[in-house]
Amino acid sequence: MTVNIALLGFGTVASGIPFLLKENGQKISSAACTDISISKVLVRDEAEKQALLAQGHDYNFVTDITAILTDPSVHIVVELMGRIEPAKTFISQALEAKKHVVTANKDLLAMHGSELLDIAAANQVALYYEAAVAGGIPILRTLASAYTSDKITKVLGVVNGTSNFMMTKMVDEGWTYDQALAEASRLGYAESDPTNDVDGIDAAYKMVILSQFAFGMTIKFDDVRHEGIRNITPADVKLAQKLGFVIKLVGEIVERESGIYAEVVPTFLPKTHQLATVNGVMNAVFVESIGIGEAMFYGPGAGQKPTAASVVADIIQLAMSVAEGYSAPPFNTFSRETIYAKKEDLLDKYYFAIETEDKSGQLLRLAELFHAENVSFEQVFQDKISDHVATIAIISHQMDLNQFDNLVAKISSLDGFTLRNTIKVI
Amino acid sequence: MTVNIALLGFGTVASGIPFLLKENGQKISSAACTDISISKVLVRDEAEKQALLAQGHDYNFVTDITAILTDPSVHIVVELMGRIEPAKTFISQALEAKKHVVTANKDLLAMHGSELLDIAAANQVALYYEAAVAGGIPILRTLASAYTSDKITKVLGVVNGTSNFMMTKMVDEGWTYDQALAEASRLGYAESDPTNDVDGIDAAYKMVILSQFAFGMTIKFDDVRHEGIRNITPADVKLAQKLGFVIKLVGEIVERESGIYAEVVPTFLPKTHQLATVNGVMNAVFVESIGIGEAMFYGPGAGQKPTAASVVADIIQLAMSVAEGYSAPPFNTFSRETIYAKKEDLLDKYYFAIETEDKSGQLLRLAELFHAENVSFEQVFQDKISDHVATIAIISHQMDLNQFDNLVAKISSLDGFTLRNTIKVI
Repeated sequence: MTVNIALLGFGTVASGIPFLLKENGQKISSAACTDISISKVLVRDEAEKQALLAQGHDYNFVTDITAILTDPSVHIVVELMGRIEPAKTFISQALEAKKHVVTANKDLLAMHGSELLDIAAANQVALYYEAAVAGGIPILRTLASAYTSDKITKVLGVVNGTSNFMMTKMVDEGWTYDQALAEASRLGYAESDPTNDVDGIDAAYKMVILSQFAFGMTIKFDDVRHEGIRNITPADVKLAQKLGFVIKLVGEIVERESGIYAEVVPTFLPKTHQLATVNGVMNAVFVESIGIGEAMFYGPGAGQKPTAASVVADIIQLAMSVAEGYSAPPFNTFSRETIYAKKEDLLDKYYFAIETEDKSGQLLRLAELFHAENVSFEQVFQDKISDHVATIAIISHQMDLNQFDNLVAKISSLDGFTLRNTIKVI
Repeated sequence: MTVNIALLGFGTVASGIPFLLKENGQKISSAACTDISISKVLVRDEAEKQALLAQGHDYNFVTDITAILTDPSVHIVVELMGRIEPAKTFISQALEAKKHVVTANKDLLAMHGSELLDIAAANQVALYYEAAVAGGIPILRTLASAYTSDKITKVLGVVNGTSNFMMTKMVDEGWTYDQALAEASRLGYAESDPTNDVDGIDAAYKMVILSQFAFGMTIKFDDVRHEGIRNITPADVKLAQKLGFVIKLVGEIVERESGIYAEVVPTFLPKTHQLATVNGVMNAVFVESIGIGEAMFYGPGAGQKPTAASVVADIIQLAMSVAEGYSAPPFNTFSRETIYAKKEDLLDKYYFAIETEDKSGQLLRLAELFHAENVSFEQVFQDKISDHVATIAIISHQMDLNQFDNLVAKISSLDGFTLRNTIKVI
C-alpha cells in the first residue's frame, strides 16, 4: 500500500521532505512497511501555486484546506507553515478529520499543545512534533522511549542556535553583544527583530515542551523565568574564563521535592561540562536521571535538512501504524499533575556584577547586604573601570530563589550601586 | 492486563530491573499501556536459588529453562547471563517458543546476531538489545528511528569505557599505560585479563552491531580492523597535546562509494572535536549524515542502572505491542547487501613514531621511503631519547589504506628503524 501525506506550506523545510523521501526511499519503505507519497500540498493562493509550478514543482497544489480535510486517501497532514494561525485551526481540523498530524511548530505547541493533544486523543489520532525542539536532535522521542524506564531529575539545554552562536563569538573572540548580533544578522541566523532568540523566549518555549516529555508536567510559558544575553559584557566573559567557566544561555528544568521549575538564563558553565563545548549554532540537551545518570544529545538545532529529517522520522512512525493497522501511540504518554517547586527548594550559586563609585566602604555595604540575606561570598573581584567607577564582581555561595530575588531587589534599590548583571553559576 | 517477563540470570544488571519497574511503575505502565510483572527468574542451580531466597528476594526462581519456555503466560524473556552459551541456546529456544527476547549480550549479538534475528523473524517475535552497545545511550533505537529518514555517512564511537578511562588518565595526568591499567584494575573497571578492552576487541564487537543499524550492512567481526592502546607512550600523548590533539581509542565506520569499512584504532582527535571531551568511563557515538549533519549521543557505557534502564526501555516497547495486540516491529529494519569499501577509497592522515639510531641521513631514508609510496609529510619532529637513539615522529598527509599498509610493512622491515607506533589522525 501507499500512505499519503499532505503538506501544509511549501517553504524551506517542507521542500526538504521530497528530497529525503526520494534519496532514502528504500530505507524509509522498509522502516515504515509502506511507501509514502506526497499527495497534496496546501499553498497560500493561486499566485504561489503558479509560481511553484513554474519552478518545476510537480505536486497537486491546493489553496483550500478543505480539499485535504475531505480527502479520505490522505492519512497524515504535515503542518510547516509556522506561527499560530491559521496553523492552529488547520491542525485542529485535520485531527478532527481523523488524520495524524506532524508539525515542527514550537510556538504553537508551547502555547496550545495541550489543547491540540486533547483533540488528537478524542479523535484517536496522533500529533507528533520531534522537530519542534532542537530540530536535528531526536530528543523528544528519546525522552518518550529510552527514558520511560527512568526518572529524570534535571534537564539542561542549549537550545537556541542564534544566541549560542553569539555567545560563542563573545567567548571565543571577545566580541561585544552588538558585534555578535551584527554577525548573526549578516549570516542570516538572527531575524530583523532578534527578541525571541536573544531574550530567551524561543528557548523558554522549548522548555515548556521538554517539561512535558521529561517530567510529565506542563509548565506554562509565563511560568518559565527567562532572561537573555543582552547584558553580557566582555568583562563578564573575561572573568568567567579566568575562573574556568564559559557563559552560555542555558535552559534548565529541575524536579525538586516540592515540584518542578524551569528557567532560561545566562549561565556560567565549567569548561569541563559537556555543554561547554556546544558551540556556534549547534544545540544540545543534557539529561540527569536516576537510572542512566548523565547523558547528552548534541546536534543541529535548525536548518532545512535536519528539521526535514526529524519531520520525516515522525511521518515514518505514523505511516507504519497506518500500514500495519494499529493505532499510533501518543507521542508522549507521561503525564502527571503539574506542581511547581517552592522557591526555597531552588538552590544555586550566582555571579553578580555591580558598578559603584570607587570609594572606600562600598564593598562593606554589599557584604552587609548579603549577610542580611544570609548569603556568603565565595569569591570577590574588584576592578576600576574609570576614574570614579569600580565594578565589584561577586560569586556567591548557594542561595535559594527567594534569597536571590531579595538580593536583586535590594542591590537594585541601593543608592550609589548599579546591578549590571546577574548570571547563574553551575 | 499484565505482561509477564522472565529473567535469565539474576546478576548485577538483572537485579536493577525490579528497582526501576517499581520506582517508575506508573510512568512505565502508561507508556506500555499495561502493567509489567517479573513472573519467573532462571538461576543456575538450587544453591543459587536458596541463596537468593535467603537474601530476601521474593521471586519465582526456577533452575530449568523449560519452566519458562513452556509457560504461556510469559510474554518476554530477558537474557542477562552473558557469554555465548548457554545464552545462545536459551534465546533461540525462547524465540522458537514465540516469546519476545531482550538481551544486553554484545558478544553474542556481534558473533551470532544475524542467526538469532532470523529465528525471531521466522517466529514472528522480536529481539531487542539496546543495552548491547553503549549501555546507557539509546543509540541503536535512535539509529533505527530518527535516522530512518536519513543517510548516514560516518559513525565514530568512543564505546569502551575501560580503555577510555585509561586514555583519559594518560592524557590528563601523563600516566603510562601500565599506571593507567593498574588504576583501572584497582577501581574494578578492568578485568584480570584486560585484553578485550585494551586491544579494541570489545569496541570492535560494538562496531559490528552499529554497522547493522547505521548502514544496514553486517560487517563480520573478523573484518573489523582493531588495534588497542598498549603501544601508546607518554611521548605520543605529549606530542599530540602540543599539536592540539587528544588520543583516544575510536571506533569508526564509514560508507564510501565502493562500500563500508570499520575499524577500532587509537586516534588523534582535535581538542575541539565533540568526542575529545568524552572522558573517563563515559561513552559517546558521533554520527555524520546527509540530513541531520553532525550529531552526538553521550552517556554511560556500562553500569548496573544505565544498563538496566536500557533493558527496561526495550521491555516497555515489547510489552506495549503485547498489550495492544500488534506485532512488535523488528528492532532494526535497515538491511542491504554488505559490500566492503576498497582500500583505495579509505583516506586518512597518520602519525608514525619511529625509533632509529641517532646519526645523520636517517630522516632522509624515511623521506625517500614515504616518497616512493607517494605520501608526503605534513609535520616532522625529531627527539633524542638516549645517547644513540632518536624518535622521529611524522604526521603524514592523507594516504589510502594500501599506502598505509605498505608503509607500515616497509618501515617495519627497514634495517636500523623500529616502528614504535602508528595512530590515525582525524
